Amino acid sequence: MNGKTKNHHKKKKKRKHQPGLAPGTPVYTGDETPQRTVITLHSYDSETFNSIKIKDAEALPALIAQPGVHWIEITGFSDTSLIEQVGEHFLLHSLTIEDILDVLQNPKFEIYENYLVLFLRRVTSGTIFNEFKSSQVCLILGPNYVISFQEKSSHIYDTVKRRLRLPKSRLRLAEVDFLFYSLLDVEVDNYFTGIDIVSEEIEHMEAESFTQPQETTLRNIHCIRQQLPLLKRSVRPLQYIANELRHERISLIRPELHIYFRDLYDHIRQIIESVEIFRDQQTGIMEIYLSNINNQMNKIMQFLTIIGTIFLPLTMVTGVYGMNFRFMPELEWRYGYYMVLTFMTAIAIGMLALFKKKNWI
Amino acid sequence: MNGKTKNHHKKKKKRKHQPGLAPGTPVYTGDETPQRTVITLHSYDSETFNSIKIKDAEALPALIAQPGVHWIEITGFSDTSLIEQVGEHFLLHSLTIEDILDVLQNPKFEIYENYLVLFLRRVTSGTIFNEFKSSQVCLILGPNYVISFQEKSSHIYDTVKRRLRLPKSRLRLAEVDFLFYSLLDVEVDNYFTGIDIVSEEIEHMEAESFTQPQETTLRNIHCIRQQLPLLKRSVRPLQYIANELRHERISLIRPELHIYFRDLYDHIRQIIESVEIFRDQQTGIMEIYLSNINNQMNKIMQFLTIIGTIFLPLTMVTGVYGMNFRFMPELEWRYGYYMVLTFMTAIAIGMLALFKKKNWI
Amino acid sequence: MNGKTKNHHKKKKKRKHQPGLAPGTPVYTGDETPQRTVITLHSYDSETFNSIKIKDAEALPALIAQPGVHWIEITGFSDTSLIEQVGEHFLLHSLTIEDILDVLQNPKFEIYENYLVLFLRRVTSGTIFNEFKSSQVCLILGPNYVISFQEKSSHIYDTVKRRLRLPKSRLRLAEVDFLFYSLLDVEVDNYFTGIDIVSEEIEHMEAESFTQPQETTLRNIHCIRQQLPLLKRSVRPLQYIANELRHERISLIRPELHIYFRDLYDHIRQIIESVEIFRDQQTGIMEIYLSNINNQMNKIMQFLTIIGTIFLPLTMVTGVYGMNFRFMPELEWRYGYYMVLTFMTAIAIGMLALFKKKNWI
Amino acid sequence: MNGKTKNHHKKKKKRKHQPGLAPGTPVYTGDETPQRTVITLHSYDSETFNSIKIKDAEALPALIAQPGVHWIEITGFSDTSLIEQVGEHFLLHSLTIEDILDVLQNPKFEIYENYLVLFLRRVTSGTIFNEFKSSQVCLILGPNYVISFQEKSSHIYDTVKRRLRLPKSRLRLAEVDFLFYSLLDVEVDNYFTGIDIVSEEIEHMEAESFTQPQETTLRNIHCIRQQLPLLKRSVRPLQYIANELRHERISLIRPELHIYFRDLYDHIRQIIESVEIFRDQQTGIMEIYLSNINNQMNKIMQFLTIIGTIFLPLTMVTGVYGMNFRFMPELEWRYGYYMVLTFMTAIAIGMLALFKKKNWI
Amino acid sequence: MNGKTKNHHKKKKKRKHQPGLAPGTPVYTGDETPQRTVITLHSYDSETFNSIKIKDAEALPALIAQPGVHWIEITGFSDTSLIEQVGEHFLLHSLTIEDILDVLQNPKFEIYENYLVLFLRRVTSGTIFNEFKSSQVCLILGPNYVISFQEKSSHIYDTVKRRLRLPKSRLRLAEVDFLFYSLLDVEVDNYFTGIDIVSEEIEHMEAESFTQPQETTLRNIHCIRQQLPLLKRSVRPLQYIANELRHERISLIRPELHIYFRDLYDHIRQIIESVEIFRDQQTGIMEIYLSNINNQMNKIMQFLTIIGTIFLPLTMVTGVYGMNFRFMPELEWRYGYYMVLTFMTAIAIGMLALFKKKNWI
Repeated sequence: MNGKTKNHHKKKKKRKHQPGLAPGTPVYTGDETPQRTVITLHSYDSETFNSIKIKDAEALPALIAQPGVHWIEITGFSDTSLIEQVGEHFLLHSLTIEDILDVLQNPKFEIYENYLVLFLRRVTSGTIFNEFKSSQVCLILGPNYVISFQEKSSHIYDTVKRRLRLPKSRLRLAEVDFLFYSLLDVEVDNYFTGIDIVSEEIEHMEAESFTQPQETTLRNIHCIRQQLPLLKRSVRPLQYIANELRHERISLIRPELHIYFRDLYDHIRQIIESVEIFRDQQTGIMEIYLSNINNQMNKIMQFLTIIGTIFLPLTMVTGVYGMNFRFMPELEWRYGYYMVLTFMTAIAIGMLALFKKKNWI
Repeated sequence: MNGKTKNHHKKKKKRKHQPGLAPGTPVYTGDETPQRTVITLHSYDSETFNSIKIKDAEALPALIAQPGVHWIEITGFSDTSLIEQVGEHFLLHSLTIEDILDVLQNPKFEIYENYLVLFLRRVTSGTIFNEFKSSQVCLILGPNYVISFQEKSSHIYDTVKRRLRLPKSRLRLAEVDFLFYSLLDVEVDNYFTGIDIVSEEIEHMEAESFTQPQETTLRNIHCIRQQLPLLKRSVRPLQYIANELRHERISLIRPELHIYFRDLYDHIRQIIESVEIFRDQQTGIMEIYLSNINNQMNKIMQFLTIIGTIFLPLTMVTGVYGMNFRFMPELEWRYGYYMVLTFMTAIAIGMLALFKKKNWI
Repeated sequence: MNGKTKNHHKKKKKRKHQPGLAPGTPVYTGDETPQRTVITLHSYDSETFNSIKIKDAEALPALIAQPGVHWIEITGFSDTSLIEQVGEHFLLHSLTIEDILDVLQNPKFEIYENYLVLFLRRVTSGTIFNEFKSSQVCLILGPNYVISFQEKSSHIYDTVKRRLRLPKSRLRLAEVDFLFYSLLDVEVDNYFTGIDIVSEEIEHMEAESFTQPQETTLRNIHCIRQQLPLLKRSVRPLQYIANELRHERISLIRPELHIYFRDLYDHIRQIIESVEIFRDQQTGIMEIYLSNINNQMNKIMQFLTIIGTIFLPLTMVTGVYGMNFRFMPELEWRYGYYMVLTFMTAIAIGMLALFKKKNWI
Repeated sequence: MNGKTKNHHKKKKKRKHQPGLAPGTPVYTGDETPQRTVITLHSYDSETFNSIKIKDAEALPALIAQPGVHWIEITGFSDTSLIEQVGEHFLLHSLTIEDILDVLQNPKFEIYENYLVLFLRRVTSGTIFNEFKSSQVCLILGPNYVISFQEKSSHIYDTVKRRLRLPKSRLRLAEVDFLFYSLLDVEVDNYFTGIDIVSEEIEHMEAESFTQPQETTLRNIHCIRQQLPLLKRSVRPLQYIANELRHERISLIRPELHIYFRDLYDHIRQIIESVEIFRDQQTGIMEIYLSNINNQMNKIMQFLTIIGTIFLPLTMVTGVYGMNFRFMPELEWRYGYYMVLTFMTAIAIGMLALFKKKNWI
Repeated sequence: MNGKTKNHHKKKKKRKHQPGLAPGTPVYTGDETPQRTVITLHSYDSETFNSIKIKDAEALPALIAQPGVHWIEITGFSDTSLIEQVGEHFLLHSLTIEDILDVLQNPKFEIYENYLVLFLRRVTSGTIFNEFKSSQVCLILGPNYVISFQEKSSHIYDTVKRRLRLPKSRLRLAEVDFLFYSLLDVEVDNYFTGIDIVSEEIEHMEAESFTQPQETTLRNIHCIRQQLPLLKRSVRPLQYIANELRHERISLIRPELHIYFRDLYDHIRQIIESVEIFRDQQTGIMEIYLSNINNQMNKIMQFLTIIGTIFLPLTMVTGVYGMNFRFMPELEWRYGYYMVLTFMTAIAIGMLALFKKKNWI
C-alpha cells in the first residue's frame, strides 16, 4: 500500500550511512535505475536567449565567463562523475556534491563563500494512500549563474523557460537572483497541487466515514496519519529557509528582491498551515469513523435483541398452552387455538409498534 | 453543508497558482460574478466634508494633492484594470495590487516606503454550520490618504461616515492615521458579531448533546471542528499585526495613537481567546455527545435484556408443567392452572419491582 | 445552571462594541442596576489619618494637593458622570475612563505619563457550578495618591483600613507605593479563597465519580470544564503584570518595593499553578467517571446475562421431558418429576456457585 | 487515602493568607505540633572542627565573627521568636524570615545584598499512594557562613558532617560556598530516593494492570495522576535555580564552583525527566488498564453468550419432539428418545468444539 | 521482557547516589563484571601511522609530547585506577573522571580550559521489546590528542582505523579536530542502525494490529511506549551538542570544520525526527489495535446473537404445535409434521440469507 514511501524511508538510512565511507564521499542514493544525466545551459540577457545542451563539463567555465545570466539545468543523476566535475568547476564544497547525490535530504539552505545552495523535495505524483513520491531538487545561486539539479525531469520549469523566451519579460530584464526566485516560486506553487490532492482525498475520507464506514476506511485513515509527518517534514524547513532569504543580508540577493521572498514566505506558511489542518482533520475523521462504526455495530445488536425480545413472550404463551394441567378451560374452546394465534400476533405487532414509536428500529 | 467554505478553500489554490503566470500578475480570484467597482472619495478637514463618486482614476492625483484628509473607498472588484490604475497612481507595488485582487489572502501587514498596507478578512454572514463566508478587506495608509478596498460592499463603515459628517467629532479634528485606526476598529468590532453567533451555536450544540443527542449532532460538532481552524487562521495574524502597530516606529503613525492601537490589541486578544475557548468547548461537547449517545444505546439494550430476563423464568415454568411425567400431582389439581398463572404473574411483577428498585428500568 | 456566567460573557461583546460609538466614549457595561457611586477619601501620614466622604469631585484637587498619602476609594458605578469628572481632575486618559466603566476588562496593566493603572477581576462569590461571579477592580497609582475603583463594594479592603488606623503600622510610615502594593496584596489573597472553593468542589466531584457516578455528575464535570478557561483568563494576565511590577523601572514605584512585588509574583504563580492543576484533575475525573459509568452498565448487563444463562439449561431440561416419545422410561418413574425438579435446582445452584466463585456476580 | 497531601494543599492557602495580616508578619504554617527548635553551630577550618549547641541567639554574632567557615544548623520551628532573633542577627529581610516559617513555599532562590537564600522541599517519606510528605528546607549563604533551616530533623546531613570531621577532606579545605554546594548536593541526591520509590510503585501498577486489573487499580492510577503534579511542582523550579547558580555572576559563589553547580544541574534535569516520564507511564498504564478491564468484561459476556447459543438449538430440538402432531414417526421409534438425546449431545459437543477451535472460549 | 532496560534505569539511581560519597569520587556504576581495560595509542601524521598497546599510564605523557596526532583508545572499565591515572596525566577535572566511570550519563558536552569532553550513549544491540542496551562513550579532544573511553569494545571504530591506515586519506592529512569529528560521525551513523531496527519492529506491530491483533500485541505496543522516552532521552541532547559544535567559538575546533559539524547536526535532526515519528506511529498503532480488538469482539458477539435470533422463531413454532388445544387442525394433517419442519427450515434459511445480504455474517 504505502510500501514505496516506506522503502524510501528505509533506503535513506541504509544507503547513506554505510560504515566505512569517509564523510564527503558522493554516493547516489536514489532509484536503482537513475535517469540519464542531461545538462542544458540557458544563457540570456535583455537582448538574447540561448539554450544549448552540454555534453562535457570542461566547456562550462568558458561559457559562464561570458556576460549575461546563465542557468545550468541538470536532470538525472546517472552520470555521477559528470556531476562531480560540474561541482568542481564551480568550486562547490565536497559536502554539497555529496548532498546533491544523496537524494534523500530534508530541505535545507546553506551559504558558502561563493554560492548559496538550497535543497527541497518536489512532490512528483501519487495520492496520499499510494505512492506519495517526492524527488530531490537542488538550486545553487552563484554570482552570475543558477545551477538546478533535478533528480527527475519534470515540466515544472517549462513556465519559466516560456517567460525567458519572451524578449521583454521581467525575467529577461532582471538579474540572476530573480531567476533563482522564479525557480523557487514554481517549486512552491507545485506544492499547492500536492496539497489539493491530499485535501480532496481527506474530504472523500470524511464523507465515507460519515455515510458508509468500512474496514478499509480505517486502514486509509491510518495511512494518512502515517504519511502526514513525512509531508510535514518535507515542507516545514521551507518556512525557515524563506524567512532567512527574506531577512538575512545575503550578498548574492539584492534587497529589492526581499519583498518577493516575503511573498514566497507567505505562500509557504499557507502550505504549512494546510498540512497542520490536515492532521487535525485526520483526527476528527478518526473520531467520526470510530463513533460511526461503533454505532453501526450497536444498531445491529439492538435490532437483533429486539427480534429476540419479541419472540420471548410469544414462546412463553405457547409454553402456557403446552402445559398438561387437567383443567385448562381454554384448551377445550372451539376456537381457542385461533384466539391464541391472534393474541400472539397482536403481541408481536404491539411490540413492533412500540419499538418503532420509540425509534429503536 | 459546508460546501461553500470548502470551495473557497480549494479555489484559493486552484486559481492563484496557475503555472505560467509570472509573479506579480494581478488576477481576480473571487466569486465568478464580482461586484461592480465603485470608487468614492471622502475628503475632509475640520471645516469641510465632501463625498464624491470617482469614475476615472486619472482624476485622483489632482484631488488628493489638495489639503485635508482623503479616504478613497473602493468596493467591488469587477473592473480590475481600474483598480490597477488606482494602484499605479498611488505608486503601489505590483505585489500589493496582485494581493488586493487575490481575495483569498490571510491577514497580513506590510510596510512599504511610501505607504503601509493591511489585509484582513471580514466575516460577512452565515453560521458556522452553513456558509461561513468571509470577504477580503485591504486598508492602505499613505501620507494624507487612506484607501480601503472591499471585495463586497457592506454597512460596516457607515458609522465612520456618520462620525465624519459631525463637524466637531474627534475624527474630523484628527489626522489621517486616526481615520486608519477608526476603520480598523470597526473591522475588529465586526469580528465580535461573528464570535457571538458561533458562541450561541456552540451553546445550542451543548444543550442538544446533553438532552437529545442525535446523529445530526455528530455531523454538526464535526462541522464546528472543521470550521474553527479556518476562523482561527483568519483571526490569529491580527494579533501580530496589532502588536506591530502599537510598538513599532512607523513613520506614518504618530506616537499619540499607540495607546489606541494598544486598546485594539486588547480587543483582538479577546477575540482570539474566544476562538481558543471554542475549540476547547467543541472537544467537551464531543465527549458529552459520545458519552450520551453511548448511554442511550446502552439503556435500550439494558431495557431489552431486562424484558428477556423476565420472560426466561416464566417460560421455564411453563416448560415444567409441559413435561409428560406420569406422576405430577399439580397437574391434577383443580386450580393448578390458575395457581401457576398467578405464580408466573407474581414472578414477573417481583422481577419488575426488583429492577425498578435497583433503578435499572 | 451557569447561565449568569454565560450572560456575562455575552454582554461583554454585545454592549461594548456598539457600532456607531467613537472609541473612547465611556459606557457602563455592568449590571442593569449599578451600585450607587460612593467616593471616600482616606488621607494619612505618620501622624494623622482621616476618612471623609466626597460628594463633589470639584473638591478633590485641593484635598489631594495637601501633604501626605491620599487614597480615593470609589465604589459603585451608578454615577458615570461623577467618575468621568474624577478622571478629568486626575488627568486620566479617555481610554482609561472608558475601561474603568467597561467592567468586563481582562486584567491589564498600563503605564501613562503621570500615573499607572491596573485592572483586575475580583472573584466575588459563588461556586464553580453556579454563579461564578467576578467584579472589576481598577487601581491607579499617582505621585501621591492611589485611586481604587470597585464595581461592587466589598469588605476586602477592611484589613487595609484597619492597619491604616494603627498609628505605628508599616503602612502609615510608608509611601504611597506601599499602599498600592497592600491593596494589590489583599486582592491576590482574595483569589486564594476562590481557589479553595473550587478545590473543594473538585474533590467532591472526584469522590462522587468513584463511588456513585450519576448523570448529573457528567453535567457538573462539563460545567467545571467550561468555567476553568474563564477563571484562567482572569488570573493568567496577573503573572505578567506582577512580573513587570517587580522588574521594570517604573518611576512611581521605589526599588525598595521590588522585593514585595517579587513575593506577590510568587503568590500569583501559586494561584495559576492551582488553576492548571484543576484542569488536569478535571480530565482525570472525567476519565474515572466514564470508566465507572461504563463499568456500572456492564455489570448490570452481565448480571442479566447470567440470569438468562442459568435459565437456559433448565428450560432445555423441561423441554426434554416435554417430548412426546412413546418410550421414555423416566416419565414412568414414580419420583421422576421430583428427581427432575431436584436436578434442575442442582443445575441452577451449581451455576450460581460457579459464577460466584469466578466473581462474576 | 491521599488525605494528608490534600490537607497540606489546603492548609497552605488557609493559614498563610489570613486577611488582616500585614505582609512580612512571620507565622508558622506547618504541623500543629512543630518540632523543638535546635540550633547547632559547626565551625571549621583546615585545622579544627567544632560543633556546639546554641541556646541563645545573642551569642551567635560573636562566634561568627571568628575566622573559619560557620554552619548554623537549625531544625524544628517550635520557637519562632528564636528564629526571628537569628534572622535579625544576620540581617535577614523580614520577607525571608516570613518565608522560612511559612513552610509551604515552592522552591525558590533569591539574592539579597548580603546573602542568598534558597528554599526547597525535601521528600521525607511515604509512597505516592499514601502520605507523600515533604518538609521545607531553607539554605542561606552569607560571606563566611551557611544557615540551614530544616522544618524536620533528618539524617540527610550526616554524610556532610562525617566528611567535615575528616581532617583532610576537600570540604574542610574549601571555602563556605563549597559547604553550601555540598548541602544542596545531598538534598538533590535525596530526591533520587523518592524517585526510586515512585518508579517501583508505577512498575507494580503496570504489572497489575496487565495481569489482574481490579477496581482498586483504577483508584491507584488516579492517585498517581493527582500526586504527580505536586511532585513536579516541588522539583521543577530547582532546574531554574541550578541554572542560575551555574551561570550567574553571584559574588558569594566563586567561579571555580560553577562546574559543580553544572553537575548539580545535570542531576536535577535527570530527576525532572524521570517525573515527566512517570506522567507518560501513568497515561500508558491507564490505557492498558481500561483496555484490559474492558476485555475482561467482554470475555465474560462472550462466554455467557456462547453458553446461551449452545442451549438454543437444543431447546429447539426438544420443542420439535414436544409437538403434538398425530403423525410423527420418530416418536414411535423404540430408541427415538435416546437417539435424540445423543443427537443433542452431539450438537452441544460440536458447537463447543467449533467455538474452541475459533478460540472463542 | 524489558527487564534489562528497567534495571539499567534503576541501577542508575541506586549506585550513583550513595549517600556519604563526596562529589567527584569516581565509582564505576556499570555491569557487575566490567570489560578488561585496554589502552591503545594510535599516533599518526601524513607520513606515518602507529598503533601500540599501552600498559602503563606513566608512558603516555612522553608519547603524546611527540609531534603528530594522537588517539588514545580506551575500552573496558575494569581497572578504574588506571583510568584515573590517565585522567590525571591529561589534567582532566575530577568531575570528568567521575562521569566517565559513572556509565549512566545522559549525553552532554562540556568545555574545560585545556580540553572539551563529550558523552554519548551507543545503542549496542537488541530490539525495542527486548534488551534495548546502550553503553557509554566519552570523547575528549585536547590540543593534539583525542581520548575515547568506551564502556564496551565495539567494531564501530574499525572504519576510522581503516581510513587512518590509508596513507593519503583525508583523515591522515587533517588535524586532530577532524579525527574528533570522524569518531563522532561514526557514532551518529551507528544510531541509524538502531533507528532502522525500531522502524522495522514498529512496521511489524502495525501489520499485526491490522491483521491479527492479539493480547501480546498490546503488551508489545506498551513496551514500545515505555522504551521510546528512554531512546529519546539518549538522542535529544545530541542536537544541542551538535548545534554548539557548529556555532560556538571553540578554540580547539577550527572554523573550517564548522561545515562538517553542520552536516552532523542535520543527521542528528533526522534521527530525532524519526524518534518523534515513532511516538506518533505508536499512538496510531494503539488506536488501530484497540479499534480492531473491539471490532473482533463485537463481530463474535454479533455472530452469536444472530445464531440466537435464528433459533428463537423456530422454538416458538415448535411451541405453537406443542400446545394442547383440542382443536388444532394442523395436528391432524397427514404431513403436518413435515410441513412444519420444512417451514422451520425455510425460516432459518430466509433469516440467514437476510443477514448475509445485510452483510452481518
